[in-house]
Amino acid sequence: MGRMATSEERTSRRDPRYDVLFEPIEIGPKTLRNRFYQVPHCIGAGSDKPGFQAAHRSIKVEGGWGAVCTEYCSIHPSSDDTMRLSARIWDEGDVHNLSAMTEAVHAENGLAGIELWYGGPHAPCLETRQVPLGPSQVSSEFETGTHCGEMDLDDIQTVQGFYVDAALRARDAGFDIIYIYGGHSYGPVQFLSPYYNHRTDKYGGSLENRARYWIEVLEKVKDAVGSDCAVVTRFAVDTLYGTNGIEIERDGMKFLEMADPYVDLWDVNIGDIRAWGEDAGPSRFYNNGHQVPWTSFVKQVTNKPVVGVGRHVDPDQMVEMIESGTLDIIGAARPSISDPWLPRKIEEGRLEDIRTCIGCNICISRWEIGGPPMICTQNATAGEEYRRGWHPEKFPQKTSDDAILVVGAGPAGSECARVLMERGYITHLVDTAEKVGGHVNGISTLPGLAQWAYHRDYREIQLEKLVNKNRDSQVALGQEPMTVESILDYGADKVVIATGSFWNTDGFNPQTKQPIPGADASLPYVLTPEQVIAGDKPIGNKVLILNYDPYYMASTLAVKLAEEGHAVTVAGIETLNSYMEFTLEAPNMERAYHRLGVEQIEMVASRIEEGRVELYDMAGNNQPRQYRGPGKDPFGPNETHEWFEFDSVVLCTGKHSNNSLYRGLKERRDEWEEKGIKAVYVIGDAQAPRLFADSTFDGHRLAREIEEPNAQWPKPYKREMAVWGTVPSPTKNHEVEYQT
Amino acid sequence: MGRMATSEERTSRRDPRYDVLFEPIEIGPKTLRNRFYQVPHCIGAGSDKPGFQAAHRSIKVEGGWGAVCTEYCSIHPSSDDTMRLSARIWDEGDVHNLSAMTEAVHAENGLAGIELWYGGPHAPCLETRQVPLGPSQVSSEFETGTHCGEMDLDDIQTVQGFYVDAALRARDAGFDIIYIYGGHSYGPVQFLSPYYNHRTDKYGGSLENRARYWIEVLEKVKDAVGSDCAVVTRFAVDTLYGTNGIEIERDGMKFLEMADPYVDLWDVNIGDIRAWGEDAGPSRFYNNGHQVPWTSFVKQVTNKPVVGVGRHVDPDQMVEMIESGTLDIIGAARPSISDPWLPRKIEEGRLEDIRTCIGCNICISRWEIGGPPMICTQNATAGEEYRRGWHPEKFPQKTSDDAILVVGAGPAGSECARVLMERGYITHLVDTAEKVGGHVNGISTLPGLAQWAYHRDYREIQLEKLVNKNRDSQVALGQEPMTVESILDYGADKVVIATGSFWNTDGFNPQTKQPIPGADASLPYVLTPEQVIAGDKPIGNKVLILNYDPYYMASTLAVKLAEEGHAVTVAGIETLNSYMEFTLEAPNMERAYHRLGVEQIEMVASRIEEGRVELYDMAGNNQPRQYRGPGKDPFGPNETHEWFEFDSVVLCTGKHSNNSLYRGLKERRDEWEEKGIKAVYVIGDAQAPRLFADSTFDGHRLAREIEEPNAQWPKPYKREMAVWGTVPSPTKNHEVEYQT
Repeated sequence: MGRMATSEERTSRRDPRYDVLFEPIEIGPKTLRNRFYQVPHCIGAGSDKPGFQAAHRSIKVEGGWGAVCTEYCSIHPSSDDTMRLSARIWDEGDVHNLSAMTEAVHAENGLAGIELWYGGPHAPCLETRQVPLGPSQVSSEFETGTHCGEMDLDDIQTVQGFYVDAALRARDAGFDIIYIYGGHSYGPVQFLSPYYNHRTDKYGGSLENRARYWIEVLEKVKDAVGSDCAVVTRFAVDTLYGTNGIEIERDGMKFLEMADPYVDLWDVNIGDIRAWGEDAGPSRFYNNGHQVPWTSFVKQVTNKPVVGVGRHVDPDQMVEMIESGTLDIIGAARPSISDPWLPRKIEEGRLEDIRTCIGCNICISRWEIGGPPMICTQNATAGEEYRRGWHPEKFPQKTSDDAILVVGAGPAGSECARVLMERGYITHLVDTAEKVGGHVNGISTLPGLAQWAYHRDYREIQLEKLVNKNRDSQVALGQEPMTVESILDYGADKVVIATGSFWNTDGFNPQTKQPIPGADASLPYVLTPEQVIAGDKPIGNKVLILNYDPYYMASTLAVKLAEEGHAVTVAGIETLNSYMEFTLEAPNMERAYHRLGVEQIEMVASRIEEGRVELYDMAGNNQPRQYRGPGKDPFGPNETHEWFEFDSVVLCTGKHSNNSLYRGLKERRDEWEEKGIKAVYVIGDAQAPRLFADSTFDGHRLAREIEEPNAQWPKPYKREMAVWGTVPSPTKNHEVEYQT
Repeated sequence: MGRMATSEERTSRRDPRYDVLFEPIEIGPKTLRNRFYQVPHCIGAGSDKPGFQAAHRSIKVEGGWGAVCTEYCSIHPSSDDTMRLSARIWDEGDVHNLSAMTEAVHAENGLAGIELWYGGPHAPCLETRQVPLGPSQVSSEFETGTHCGEMDLDDIQTVQGFYVDAALRARDAGFDIIYIYGGHSYGPVQFLSPYYNHRTDKYGGSLENRARYWIEVLEKVKDAVGSDCAVVTRFAVDTLYGTNGIEIERDGMKFLEMADPYVDLWDVNIGDIRAWGEDAGPSRFYNNGHQVPWTSFVKQVTNKPVVGVGRHVDPDQMVEMIESGTLDIIGAARPSISDPWLPRKIEEGRLEDIRTCIGCNICISRWEIGGPPMICTQNATAGEEYRRGWHPEKFPQKTSDDAILVVGAGPAGSECARVLMERGYITHLVDTAEKVGGHVNGISTLPGLAQWAYHRDYREIQLEKLVNKNRDSQVALGQEPMTVESILDYGADKVVIATGSFWNTDGFNPQTKQPIPGADASLPYVLTPEQVIAGDKPIGNKVLILNYDPYYMASTLAVKLAEEGHAVTVAGIETLNSYMEFTLEAPNMERAYHRLGVEQIEMVASRIEEGRVELYDMAGNNQPRQYRGPGKDPFGPNETHEWFEFDSVVLCTGKHSNNSLYRGLKERRDEWEEKGIKAVYVIGDAQAPRLFADSTFDGHRLAREIEEPNAQWPKPYKREMAVWGTVPSPTKNHEVEYQT
């Protein structure tokens, strides 16, 4: 890697057309050092994992982001998002933990922001068991079984006081930027929107009345902390409900004008939280900058700086956004996860090194699940900065002269080889395919998934650069398949098997854990996803996709085949791929099904014959369980088998590992020493099929830990949890005076 | 409450027919002091919240349970159940935290057990990102998107070593009882069951081969810790899959015989984890002791003690189980949550004081959601023992002579009054109804919900006893409705409004947050749930239930009406009530729908007319969002409205608070002082409709905290979380030697 360039050298390498991105700008009492701004986004740290929070955010500042923010941060126990993980600033303990982040961010010369959140009817309060309050007594339109209390005038004062208390604590924790969060259907936007606000007093009815609560919050917070901190509000300028909510040209622009005096920076977006894939648009449905048609109205009515998102990854588009007066500051969540050093790479003139966000929304899925640490398909170090001590751009140098053979150049293998080369190891990456990328090459040809190929592109470019730097390493593509024999004879000190997985050809599935009778992809009317992608096997008019997989394959093939004119039905336990709820892709995928006439049948297959498939309803056995004696189904017989006619059947029933090389090598372990092989590892799908984010991680991990005595097993990581005996006493939650 | 009786006095009060329940019994090297045994169950504490874990378990020992166990406890990071919260014993930090429980349990003279868990294909590993290993490479039949690696022979040694390491750590943490968990489709039962085990080596095929892994684990663990600890295994003696899994009379009994030498206690149950409501049977479908038809086989083949569950709440039935040779030890999870002092109340001859589990499975729902602290409908202190310092049977005495009026004797009001009286406050509980219980009186008349009336019965009995003890207090039922005027003049120092909620009569719903045009429960063909329960309004043959509620009401009414001969359809966002997935009621409710011919339509209502309802498909707007200008739905028009014919419509669209008394009192706050009123509070559904577990909690909380200056707002509680700066370094995860 050589030495780092000095700041001056770097600046000189920057293309002058990007200069505007590096101009400082005032935000209230603070100066943002450039135009790169990480808007609030969830990572699974909150105030509960202070080390994670501090490391993840501060590495971005090191990488050139002028400001970074926490995720949404609850201001009071009556706004508790458990089962999801949010930040909290309820007491001095939270102040203590959050200050880990502000200190780390300030050490890198960045600004730290915090997003104050009050969830109202959307806060389940499953931990605190308190009652969230809203403008009216309405239930959440997406949350399971919440209800809220309607604020009376005393409650309004009280909750506004929670914001002030939280802002004072945030200032004490060292935050420079304090958000009043009014996007994504949360907090004050509930007062502004007639969808939630049914009040008839001075806080409901006219726009002036509906805006009152929010403006009062801004005023009070500005009074309390405005000389020390920038006060920002995040505003969903159009809730996308038509006249039922806020529309930019009506209430949206008027509210911007009314609240402008109390705001130092506008962070604008669109949509609600139920369908927030309209904001964090997956690349499958939305291109970069998709919010511009709405947000371009904003600067017509404010002179305050404006920041906005839209998966901004292209520096030329960023410049265009600023020069055209659409935005002043480039906001980013996902692109900053995918490449924490994106601004620095622009500054250093290394555009080809940018690890571009693929827009798959796997990062978001983890918050939707409830808050395990965020992961990223492109950036295997995301979420691992503190607990495993990984830096996205820095790698410990090799500790031996071991030469390493990596067999398979898919997500796991290409990432493993890349990191091994970054570490200085002589590495050979070998594949039969003509391109690195493995199955990503195929799936990125599917409708909507073209940008997923950025995953391959990044590794392809980096591997080329690394091989050019160390000619002992190589990427050998288009090779004959390796065998156990040829691996043993290769001369490698260590061998990494990354041979991927295949879709089951026999209908083996998680439900029966058996093949489906009659399923056989060597038959002309039965296909695997690989065969559909390859496109060299004829497919009949009426297609049945049998699906047991929760993620994207079945629905993506359904769209592809329907667009190509087939009549498509998806049957199985999963018909629309439940994991896509977590990636925010499901709502628009459901619309696509509707538009294309894709049918869904919630039945599973018991038999396939030419021209027809037998399906049954899993709920068809209609008796509660009773003891029936040996050999009897305790639920009684299932009598709902039905035949359906189809021309072709596609099997998305599950995957298995391609692990014959690994198994074969282990069987001949007694020959390793003689052949000079110290260890053989298996990574990625070849060990167990999984998300390609996790395969990428697995390859990265092994490359970082390959010196460990048992590197097949990950090293322990730092766990941030309560330690018995050190738990602090409860602190007072609030200072304002309550009326009862 | 007076002084506690001495141990001798208590024993003397015990009915001799229960003596067998108090006989000690040997479990390997340990002695269980009686026959009351809290089997492993989840509470949301794990090793992450050591104070919660210690307090919740040890209060049960104080209440007479001879042994208490943790929830399932992961033995290694490759078995990580995140997004759910399990215990973990991965390192010394976990040992430290879990020892808080063992110390507290030993201080009360009980035995502490730990359930060692390896999840295989069911472990999502969303935190650790490791690969769980199983007997074969199979995906989970219920978990979203997991996959596992198939153990090779080295891996089998390694994972067996994880059990040994974990057992040694568990012993060091002070546990007396160490489980090898093989129930609920986890761990070694995956090897035993041909459903998961497809191996062809010595660990697959014949029963002897399939049993080998488990028996080896038991042997190794017994070798390691058997002289210090009792080794127990939890065994699903029948997986309820018929010949596809384990059946008691075949493999079940044979495995019991084969493994018997290595086991000190058998903890037996039935079923799997996907449908574990067959084990933790909700009272809606299963009565107490429902597992006896299976588990009664067990003692035919073992001489080791046997413990089993089945919501055992009746001491006579417990005696019968032991005397008939079905079980040696009464296992309980839910009954021990509902009444942690159940054994002590039997011992003290206070059967009428037992707070009987209603079998609603709300406790379980929280684990299913992912691990917010467990709650209990009957026992408001469950989960609050450490963080709020609440004891289920001990109450701080009053701090003033305030006399308190509680208006409304439903779940919140009756619990509030009970606790106020326990604390010594003069309390008047007033209701218009003839019985305490509020809406529980109505819902417990619905099919399957009879046992929910235990909630009312407990409070009814306790209130009667408390009023008999302090004649200044009273429960005044069948009263004229109170008015703001009559409350102001009542003479109370403090007033608690607990007037409940009502189902919306106009179709107001969380989706549109508006009434449904044409919905009006004063019309003859439109009904609320209350009207259906009251039974005094005619209902036509074809009934449509419009549902937006995730919990039980709509499906329970569907069953009631279908059983009464109506043709029932449920339409709405929720057709089968998603929260019932969390209470394990959904699978059998789905079977009931199927058996009774209840139709489900996933559409929502836009209009109601006599004889017909207009429904539309929420996914019917089939375009991705695009900018269309003001007043336009950005998704395009929805063109899928359809009319359906019905005779009667039932509105389960949402609830609102009955809060007119509270609002009225607040409006006249200037008169409070003159009337001697110091404070007015609102609790339970009258503030915000919610689970009746949460309303009960709310009443309990206010009664505990009523002296606080702002008692309407809950006091802060102790939060067990990481503290920045005190996070320990990672410890070595394992000691066994791995092969790579």
